[in-house]
Amino acid sequence: MASDIALGVDVGGTKSLAVLMSRTGEVLEEVTTPTPHDPSRGAGEAMAEVLATQIRELTSRHGSDPATVPIGIGVPGLVRRDGSLAYAPNLQSASGADLPAALAERLGNHSVHVENDGNCAALAEFAWGAARGIDDFVMVTLGTGIGGGLVANGQLVRGRSGFAGEIGHMVVEARGAPCHCGGYGCWERYASGSGLGRLASLAAAEGRLPTLSVRAGAPELVRAEHVTAGAAEGLAEALALLDEVAWWLALGISNLAAIMDAGHFVIGGGLSVAADFMVPSATTYLADLVEGYPMRPPFTLVPSAFGVRAGALGAAVVAFERAG
Amino acid sequence: MASDIALGVDVGGTKSLAVLMSRTGEVLEEVTTPTPHDPSRGAGEAMAEVLATQIRELTSRHGSDPATVPIGIGVPGLVRRDGSLAYAPNLQSASGADLPAALAERLGNHSVHVENDGNCAALAEFAWGAARGIDDFVMVTLGTGIGGGLVANGQLVRGRSGFAGEIGHMVVEARGAPCHCGGYGCWERYASGSGLGRLASLAAAEGRLPTLSVRAGAPELVRAEHVTAGAAEGLAEALALLDEVAWWLALGISNLAAIMDAGHFVIGGGLSVAADFMVPSATTYLADLVEGYPMRPPFTLVPSAFGVRAGALGAAVVAFERAG
Repeated sequence: MASDIALGVDVGGTKSLAVLMSRTGEVLEEVTTPTPHDPSRGAGEAMAEVLATQIRELTSRHGSDPATVPIGIGVPGLVRRDGSLAYAPNLQSASGADLPAALAERLGNHSVHVENDGNCAALAEFAWGAARGIDDFVMVTLGTGIGGGLVANGQLVRGRSGFAGEIGHMVVEARGAPCHCGGYGCWERYASGSGLGRLASLAAAEGRLPTLSVRAGAPELVRAEHVTAGAAEGLAEALALLDEVAWWLALGISNLAAIMDAGHFVIGGGLSVAADFMVPSATTYLADLVEGYPMRPPFTLVPSAFGVRAGALGAAVVAFERAG
Repeated sequence: MASDIALGVDVGGTKSLAVLMSRTGEVLEEVTTPTPHDPSRGAGEAMAEVLATQIRELTSRHGSDPATVPIGIGVPGLVRRDGSLAYAPNLQSASGADLPAALAERLGNHSVHVENDGNCAALAEFAWGAARGIDDFVMVTLGTGIGGGLVANGQLVRGRSGFAGEIGHMVVEARGAPCHCGGYGCWERYASGSGLGRLASLAAAEGRLPTLSVRAGAPELVRAEHVTAGAAEGLAEALALLDEVAWWLALGISNLAAIMDAGHFVIGGGLSVAADFMVPSATTYLADLVEGYPMRPPFTLVPSAFGVRAGALGAAVVAFERAG
């Protein structure tokens, strides 16, 4: 019999959020725990213990059995279709971990499903949030980098290995800014939190952020936070820089529109305060950037319905879907 | 009852190829006719007449009824889900045409389905060709521009309006070479036939194609054909230029790999002679360009099984699928 409840855990670089969800999208219980980083133990061992503790706590509060509730886990990185973690640069201690096996051992639970966190967020918005009923859309998660998830024909696009949705590593400027992935010119070097920081440093060095440079102490000390704070008080130089980042945001979105003809984009992630400033101009820039723009219906860029909880909620959607 | 046969027509900028297909992918009959370009008549009127004539000829040869055979039509441009042509820069006289209505009127056939030609080619390779059994792949059609089609989760990605697969207009170099679409830095300005011609002109002007410049008469007269011919005889300067184009080909492919985690790419279109030279080095370049390359299974770039007939065959697949 299909379960009425499911657990979703979003394992972030600094903390793990676990939620117990109803099928209709109610958060029944939740708990947040620091994510362990213990390289002295086997891949993901410390993490599996923290997750098992979170899961026991939530099921105990709710009076359900930790061995039988379907569990979904969202992680940053490349997750194979079998649930193992191929590559997780922001979660080194879990790279290569087999969390389903580790949790089966600790909880006796054999319904543990791991998915990329951006894909989870897309599923949460599709099931319960800002993309309900929209069969072709893209979740764009603006954080330190850019994560995301694609829905086409009403289904999550997983790809051959399960690695689909790495939209932040789409190259938008050939031979452009170097990226930690080893490539150059990846979208996330322009339109993410770190991209904003990078462009702010460049702009400050060029003398385009005089007020923020004074506030930061020196041009080379200007950070993304200074820009966001400046924009919040209406400082023109800060707004101009966010407008530049908005252009890059629109550029990547227009590529996704060309490739998969999505017209709806849900913007989530930690950069969402800056995103509030960027979304109106990004939407305007699409008119110049999208091929055949006048022939297409309007584009909608909307904020995530769940903010930083989208990944955890979506992990529960994964659990509902894959547990059958 | 589902039909045993279907008609597929690929309407190109210069000629229209019509094929009568069996469900197993046999070409039963075929005919090629010049594509009419008559701006003095209503949108697509001259074209509808040519198509009706082709269809009557093939069904008559085969002894079947032109009113009941399901018909698929592939066209270059943005095709709406209802089969009308939103935008067809290479087929101006058909822009806005409603071919299903025009053929219903002429043939009494109410099962006419129009689809983008790149999407058709993808479906032909998926059904009968170089992508059989592969649920996540991309068709890359290298012609004057770059067309294509995406298959994800074993389904054609059509997108909200039916415009998906415009991969040639993915921007790979922000503020790069101007494109006829109005944008800048589109992939097809680097890795298509016209891209090859453009890069050849640049290289000749920089003195990097001395032998080809002599052959052409002057550096400014060097065309894509000179490069392809030079490569065929092993001329180093020509091979070096194709290698450059191969790098751009790999760049776009690596973007598609990041976005949808496809590992299989079917290369078709009129540039396929040059593609034979480019595919080996493009495949090698992927190792540098794809994020997390070592964690992924090998990539396969393969030639189209059907060459220039892929679009027509795929139009017949559309007819089989949508006629039910």
